[in-house]
Amino acid sequence: MSTNQFDKKTEAWSALFSEPMSELVQRYTASVFFDKRLADADITGSLAHADMLAAQGIISKDDLAAIQRGMAQIRQEIADGQFEWKLALEDVHLNIEARLTQLVGDAGKRLHTGRSRNDQVATDIRLWLRGEIDLITGLLRELQLALVEVAEKHVDVILPGFTHLQVAQPVSFAHHLLAYVEMFARDEARMGDVRRRVNQLPLGSAALAGTTYPLDRERVAKTLGMEGVCQNSLDAVSDRDFAIEFAAAAALVMVHISRLSEELILWMSQNFAFIRIADRFTTGSSIMPQKKNPDVPELARGKTGRVVGHLMGLITLMKGQPLAYNKDNQEDKEPLFDTVDTLRDTLRIFVEMIGGQADPATGTKSGGITVNATAMEAAAQKGYATATDLADYLVKKGQPFRDAHETVAHAVKAAQSHGCDLSELPLNVLQGFHSAIEKDVYDVLSLRGSLEARDTLGGTAPSQVAGQIQRHRQRLVP
Amino acid sequence: MSTNQFDKKTEAWSALFSEPMSELVQRYTASVFFDKRLADADITGSLAHADMLAAQGIISKDDLAAIQRGMAQIRQEIADGQFEWKLALEDVHLNIEARLTQLVGDAGKRLHTGRSRNDQVATDIRLWLRGEIDLITGLLRELQLALVEVAEKHVDVILPGFTHLQVAQPVSFAHHLLAYVEMFARDEARMGDVRRRVNQLPLGSAALAGTTYPLDRERVAKTLGMEGVCQNSLDAVSDRDFAIEFAAAAALVMVHISRLSEELILWMSQNFAFIRIADRFTTGSSIMPQKKNPDVPELARGKTGRVVGHLMGLITLMKGQPLAYNKDNQEDKEPLFDTVDTLRDTLRIFVEMIGGQADPATGTKSGGITVNATAMEAAAQKGYATATDLADYLVKKGQPFRDAHETVAHAVKAAQSHGCDLSELPLNVLQGFHSAIEKDVYDVLSLRGSLEARDTLGGTAPSQVAGQIQRHRQRLVP
Amino acid sequence: MSTNQFDKKTEAWSALFSEPMSELVQRYTASVFFDKRLADADITGSLAHADMLAAQGIISKDDLAAIQRGMAQIRQEIADGQFEWKLALEDVHLNIEARLTQLVGDAGKRLHTGRSRNDQVATDIRLWLRGEIDLITGLLRELQLALVEVAEKHVDVILPGFTHLQVAQPVSFAHHLLAYVEMFARDEARMGDVRRRVNQLPLGSAALAGTTYPLDRERVAKTLGMEGVCQNSLDAVSDRDFAIEFAAAAALVMVHISRLSEELILWMSQNFAFIRIADRFTTGSSIMPQKKNPDVPELARGKTGRVVGHLMGLITLMKGQPLAYNKDNQEDKEPLFDTVDTLRDTLRIFVEMIGGQADPATGTKSGGITVNATAMEAAAQKGYATATDLADYLVKKGQPFRDAHETVAHAVKAAQSHGCDLSELPLNVLQGFHSAIEKDVYDVLSLRGSLEARDTLGGTAPSQVAGQIQRHRQRLVP
Amino acid sequence: MSTNQFDKKTEAWSALFSEPMSELVQRYTASVFFDKRLADADITGSLAHADMLAAQGIISKDDLAAIQRGMAQIRQEIADGQFEWKLALEDVHLNIEARLTQLVGDAGKRLHTGRSRNDQVATDIRLWLRGEIDLITGLLRELQLALVEVAEKHVDVILPGFTHLQVAQPVSFAHHLLAYVEMFARDEARMGDVRRRVNQLPLGSAALAGTTYPLDRERVAKTLGMEGVCQNSLDAVSDRDFAIEFAAAAALVMVHISRLSEELILWMSQNFAFIRIADRFTTGSSIMPQKKNPDVPELARGKTGRVVGHLMGLITLMKGQPLAYNKDNQEDKEPLFDTVDTLRDTLRIFVEMIGGQADPATGTKSGGITVNATAMEAAAQKGYATATDLADYLVKKGQPFRDAHETVAHAVKAAQSHGCDLSELPLNVLQGFHSAIEKDVYDVLSLRGSLEARDTLGGTAPSQVAGQIQRHRQRLVP
Repeated sequence: MSTNQFDKKTEAWSALFSEPMSELVQRYTASVFFDKRLADADITGSLAHADMLAAQGIISKDDLAAIQRGMAQIRQEIADGQFEWKLALEDVHLNIEARLTQLVGDAGKRLHTGRSRNDQVATDIRLWLRGEIDLITGLLRELQLALVEVAEKHVDVILPGFTHLQVAQPVSFAHHLLAYVEMFARDEARMGDVRRRVNQLPLGSAALAGTTYPLDRERVAKTLGMEGVCQNSLDAVSDRDFAIEFAAAAALVMVHISRLSEELILWMSQNFAFIRIADRFTTGSSIMPQKKNPDVPELARGKTGRVVGHLMGLITLMKGQPLAYNKDNQEDKEPLFDTVDTLRDTLRIFVEMIGGQADPATGTKSGGITVNATAMEAAAQKGYATATDLADYLVKKGQPFRDAHETVAHAVKAAQSHGCDLSELPLNVLQGFHSAIEKDVYDVLSLRGSLEARDTLGGTAPSQVAGQIQRHRQRLVP
Repeated sequence: MSTNQFDKKTEAWSALFSEPMSELVQRYTASVFFDKRLADADITGSLAHADMLAAQGIISKDDLAAIQRGMAQIRQEIADGQFEWKLALEDVHLNIEARLTQLVGDAGKRLHTGRSRNDQVATDIRLWLRGEIDLITGLLRELQLALVEVAEKHVDVILPGFTHLQVAQPVSFAHHLLAYVEMFARDEARMGDVRRRVNQLPLGSAALAGTTYPLDRERVAKTLGMEGVCQNSLDAVSDRDFAIEFAAAAALVMVHISRLSEELILWMSQNFAFIRIADRFTTGSSIMPQKKNPDVPELARGKTGRVVGHLMGLITLMKGQPLAYNKDNQEDKEPLFDTVDTLRDTLRIFVEMIGGQADPATGTKSGGITVNATAMEAAAQKGYATATDLADYLVKKGQPFRDAHETVAHAVKAAQSHGCDLSELPLNVLQGFHSAIEKDVYDVLSLRGSLEARDTLGGTAPSQVAGQIQRHRQRLVP
Repeated sequence: MSTNQFDKKTEAWSALFSEPMSELVQRYTASVFFDKRLADADITGSLAHADMLAAQGIISKDDLAAIQRGMAQIRQEIADGQFEWKLALEDVHLNIEARLTQLVGDAGKRLHTGRSRNDQVATDIRLWLRGEIDLITGLLRELQLALVEVAEKHVDVILPGFTHLQVAQPVSFAHHLLAYVEMFARDEARMGDVRRRVNQLPLGSAALAGTTYPLDRERVAKTLGMEGVCQNSLDAVSDRDFAIEFAAAAALVMVHISRLSEELILWMSQNFAFIRIADRFTTGSSIMPQKKNPDVPELARGKTGRVVGHLMGLITLMKGQPLAYNKDNQEDKEPLFDTVDTLRDTLRIFVEMIGGQADPATGTKSGGITVNATAMEAAAQKGYATATDLADYLVKKGQPFRDAHETVAHAVKAAQSHGCDLSELPLNVLQGFHSAIEKDVYDVLSLRGSLEARDTLGGTAPSQVAGQIQRHRQRLVP
Repeated sequence: MSTNQFDKKTEAWSALFSEPMSELVQRYTASVFFDKRLADADITGSLAHADMLAAQGIISKDDLAAIQRGMAQIRQEIADGQFEWKLALEDVHLNIEARLTQLVGDAGKRLHTGRSRNDQVATDIRLWLRGEIDLITGLLRELQLALVEVAEKHVDVILPGFTHLQVAQPVSFAHHLLAYVEMFARDEARMGDVRRRVNQLPLGSAALAGTTYPLDRERVAKTLGMEGVCQNSLDAVSDRDFAIEFAAAAALVMVHISRLSEELILWMSQNFAFIRIADRFTTGSSIMPQKKNPDVPELARGKTGRVVGHLMGLITLMKGQPLAYNKDNQEDKEPLFDTVDTLRDTLRIFVEMIGGQADPATGTKSGGITVNATAMEAAAQKGYATATDLADYLVKKGQPFRDAHETVAHAVKAAQSHGCDLSELPLNVLQGFHSAIEKDVYDVLSLRGSLEARDTLGGTAPSQVAGQIQRHRQRLVP
């Protein structure tokens, strides 16, 4: 029986290599300390490969059984933290294959028939990433639902809608939250698109050119639940589009998180005081005893940079690489892993910070954001938020919009000089700006009147908002 | 009849503003010199809006007719280069609206009823970008077809397949080209996904909160051929996801272009001399009389940076912006425009550089890349490209793959020391490495034998490659 | 006399090239429409080169005189807008050289002796960029001075100092502005460092390997005011470090501008109302008649993305390029030009927006930001901003800091439950938290007392701030 | 004696906080698992702070002694791996302070007097980064020296100098290597500039506004070897310019590494075969027995993306942050740490891969790159590399350069059609292109003649190259 070269892996290429790797080089080029995270996917992929090799008669049924037995034990050893990862074996693939050979002998050595690490690692990442996308998609849905639930309770709460951070028009606080639901819904859709392109099988492409064994790649794809087979072996082993595409979708998620965080931070600031978030999402100061800081949203906003950086790194990595596989590609993993971790942690924590935690007994949620409706409405009073309504009123009285706009500007200027709101100007003063103004103008000039008037699809009128909430609920809680 | 405030736009907000803008500020904040590119989309959007306003009875049929008449004339003026763009009118929207009002009076002033520049510009960009995506998608398909056509002629040409830029295994040159077809096909699919999310209607969201007029947004969407209506007004006016998503898809296109360019440059280099590209895609040197430089691929590789930079710029732009519209968003246009231009020019030029130009009379294409099959095959002889085939041969003779791999390493070492290829080692020498080796080993050790042996789905065997070409043809030339 | 090949530049390489460039290729590869901006630097560099060629006896004095005469005329033609730029002549260099040859015959053809476009363009960009850095440095100093002047008037104005956007401790508004002076002073220093590395002479490196003519490169460097000569010809023609380094320094300027803009926007918001900026830096809304939006700071914040994008683009451009010059490098110009323009415009406009404009007659400035000291101080009252002072008070009474911090947290909690400030708690209540508290605690609890107590180097005490203002003044107005 | 709040840190803010942090939040916001790397800098900074507090009479000499004793023990515990890092204590600062208080009681609680974690962490990072910059600078010098040493041995080796990857002119291989010495020398200079701005003291700025204690910040700066004191407390705690500036300088180092790697990979490719690198920097293939891949240069090229990504992440992080410290800033550490690690590992490994390892006994180096001078010179014969020399020859005979350039193009065309080099054309054929050509033209047309003729400053003539080597040696081995 032949020996196990893996026992002396540093000499595995001894026939051609005149010296072993130095320790620094080993550490520089090895990936096992981060890619062991792919162990589960690696084993799953190997089992599907072995199953097909046996079905095609390339290995014997006995070999298959031995491989399955060995892999089961390895999986257990990893789960138990008993598996010994060796730097000298470079990566997750060789570590597992070496152990397999140790456990089951020649059958283990036959596993690598008709494949290469190039197609193997591409398969592993895709399998792993598919699972992570599913988790992230679930979290994106949970976050949407948390937002919808808070919105549900605040349909009638009036928030100053800002453009340019200047008071613009009153909006329903629920309507504002639903804007983020739209964003995260788009993120969910994008993740779905990425998933389709991730869920393709490279295995069977071997090193770069395909293989001389009569593989049944469709069978492997089916076993692994993949939607298709990569149709070109050179492309299959060198393609990292899916990683870049995922990172781009992740960057957009984080851009949305950063926008929401910016608003939470503003709203928590004493000058707004619109909301509070639960204490456990804030921290104090080592010097200022009064501080309660919105650490979680700030950190999340900061982590946008991290994910964007990974996207940039991945693109730079692939730029100008000739075909097929180059070692550069190994650098795809760490940014991808960190992107996934950042997304998962951030989404999970936002779900709770926004929506609160469910009491295991009653199912009632508590600990989400607390809304100060009074402060919101008071702030909406500050910036002539109903000026557009007055212009629309004049249009309905026959003035062209452009002229009405100009008329109202004069009215606002007058109100400013009186230090009062438009609704506080006496009727005769208002009529001085346009003779068509009548007493019913005051309905139009109230915040609530303004809110309710925006009753078209997508508008902020409470009835519209309620309709959207219902639509989202049906979508999210089927 | 009321006056036209646009005639004195710098004073348009005179009621509230105590001083006109300085020239520098005007130049800094105005967008007309780049956003006039949206003029056609702006008019199309305005006409759909006016049509709906009339259908809903918000403006009269006469007003609609006047607007349509005025817009027709404006469109003509722009086409004729007669339209006078004014910096003082800030942007494409006010320039067109001002001219409309000049032409048709109060009807023009009524056009802006129930909309704001915030939803108007979002609609314009989406309409414009949808058209550009369609053009780019067409070019991506043309480029795929050009590659397929060149591939078709070179199915049997043997290229050294590289990994790590070291000779790995022989591949069909056609197979290599088809790897790029896969990449550009994915790009096409991604553009399709982006298009769906671009093709949604923000109009009717007004400034941020919806409007008080009984708009029929579904009608406008239908008129404009859009697939849906943005369901939240705050999101509709502040969302720039579609721009980032498009830029990310564009960056991937350019990454693929950069990889292809890298290879074209390598292949053109005297040390490879695998191909030539037509003279009109190269330039000479102002000092070195013998030079013929592959300028186009180099420049295209460089332009990857440009598009990646735009993607990063757009993400940075949106990071941390509170809702709803902020002026920052105006910075979305120039990177988007330049990304589109870069993609269109680059793809167009690659279509011709790869595939050549069709003779208008005969339809025959000429001027595409010229392949030096002899140089390619000679290069494939250099790096023991059939060593894996020998290992596979031994596996078929019963050796486990890992052992066969080790055996062949010794054979390669021997061949190296003899300064010859594996196929040049005498049978008895080969048998020294493994007794199961027989005379038929020489079939396996030939480049063509190796090529033909990789006959599984996605592999490089000519029959497989021919099958892929047929599949692509059917997809691309329906 | 020989003919002028430039008259038929598209055939300039006719001996080797079998076909002229297509129009699309010409447009794709030509740079004249953006690099003509380097015309002045190109002429300056050529004159220094010609002067040296004559001094070294490589060309005759008559040729030098002819070149000088021709260049003077070309400079005038460009200044007058009479110079005809030709796409077919590719770039600024060939356009000028062709015109020179047209004007002065063979002398013009001798100008290119001992140089190549590779070292010529590198010289041009460095000369041009050096000038732009000087302009930008001047603007950075103007902006610092504007901030110092506003600070000078507001040393005693109390602003709530924020950390985490939560009220932290009272600070002098002047102190806050001086934080930005520090940032822009660092930017100034960085630009100085970049300038030194920009100001080195590539000319004389020719295409890549140096030249066979006895050039005196030190003389050219001296004529052009450059600090040194690039010591390696391969590096000299392919190096674009200076462009990346400049873009990185520029990105930091924009990061600072984005932070200042963020604060200006916050401070302009109705919920802060800390400042106003002059109307000419704001715009209104096409729909909301009451709006006055801080467009300039928003746009400036957005333009950060633009400059960051250019930095990323330039790095991507250079990644992995083999030596020496590659056509990719041509893509360095547009991002560099746009970065310079963005910086210059933004800094110029911020100088005025912050500091106002000087009356040409009196020199008095007006139109800078207007400070609402009352609103600032009122906001500083909101968040227990003097809690740290109470802790420090207790430390001075003998409590270890960590214990004092805990004690004050209890006091803050009590004040919160009473809905009052710490300074509004009666003495006996305060003494309940620690017996050492005496009547003098109320000096410590006032905002002004807190401010004045921070009287160490770099602290916010008015005396410290005044000292810093004096230091900056001496530095900026020597 | 008071209790130690750190024993119950999760309740440290209990007076104000109604609930402890959840485990997920703790993990999300804590930094101790990465910032413990700053422990040494943290202790050094604390000791300098304590020394000053005692000198100023703010704490007693006994307290100082206790702190020094405690810190010595903590340092030892950390060195021995005995220190117990606690997630609940958030960061390196609180972990060390808590342990100190445990060890020395109230003296430990007094250490935080007059400082905050905001200025403490800024000080720690600067101290740590200063040390890393010194290490990196040393490695940059080692790498330059390694390149100089290899160059020294190959001054007369002829390499085809490429532009556009087309053979351009012959260059000395040493000259080519020295181009990289120039790049890394600039990197060294840039690191020096960054160091000056890093080496400033934030400590004494406290949370944001300075402190009420009579600190002597100059003394602390002197103790820590810092060049100055940050002059504005708000800026001092919120500035992260130095991190971005370092990352930008690091990105440039990696851009240079990526260019060198690209060339090493090309030169290792069978079609060039210009060099070999030692086996220990290469790896084999799991499937192809003949492979020896240049893993280290490929991975280094890939790691460029990583560092560029970190730069992008850091800029995105800081964009638009209001003053002063925000929690976002915590995200500065991981990218900075990883950038430093990547640079150090990469430079270290390149020093050895290029220059080899010294035998400890003899000091002789071996194992650096092996040069195949024959292959290089053969490649230089391929592309009419001396065509420019012929043009220069004609100029010296009186032809204007532009005409000579054209003449030579014809000669090259003729040689191409004969399938020979210019030097292989008979004299009478050459004279057919220009009558002034004489027999001495063949000196000019030889590679070595061409090389030696480029004898101006910065040129590739061996004498020039030798001069540069001497200059670098004096600079690097003083």
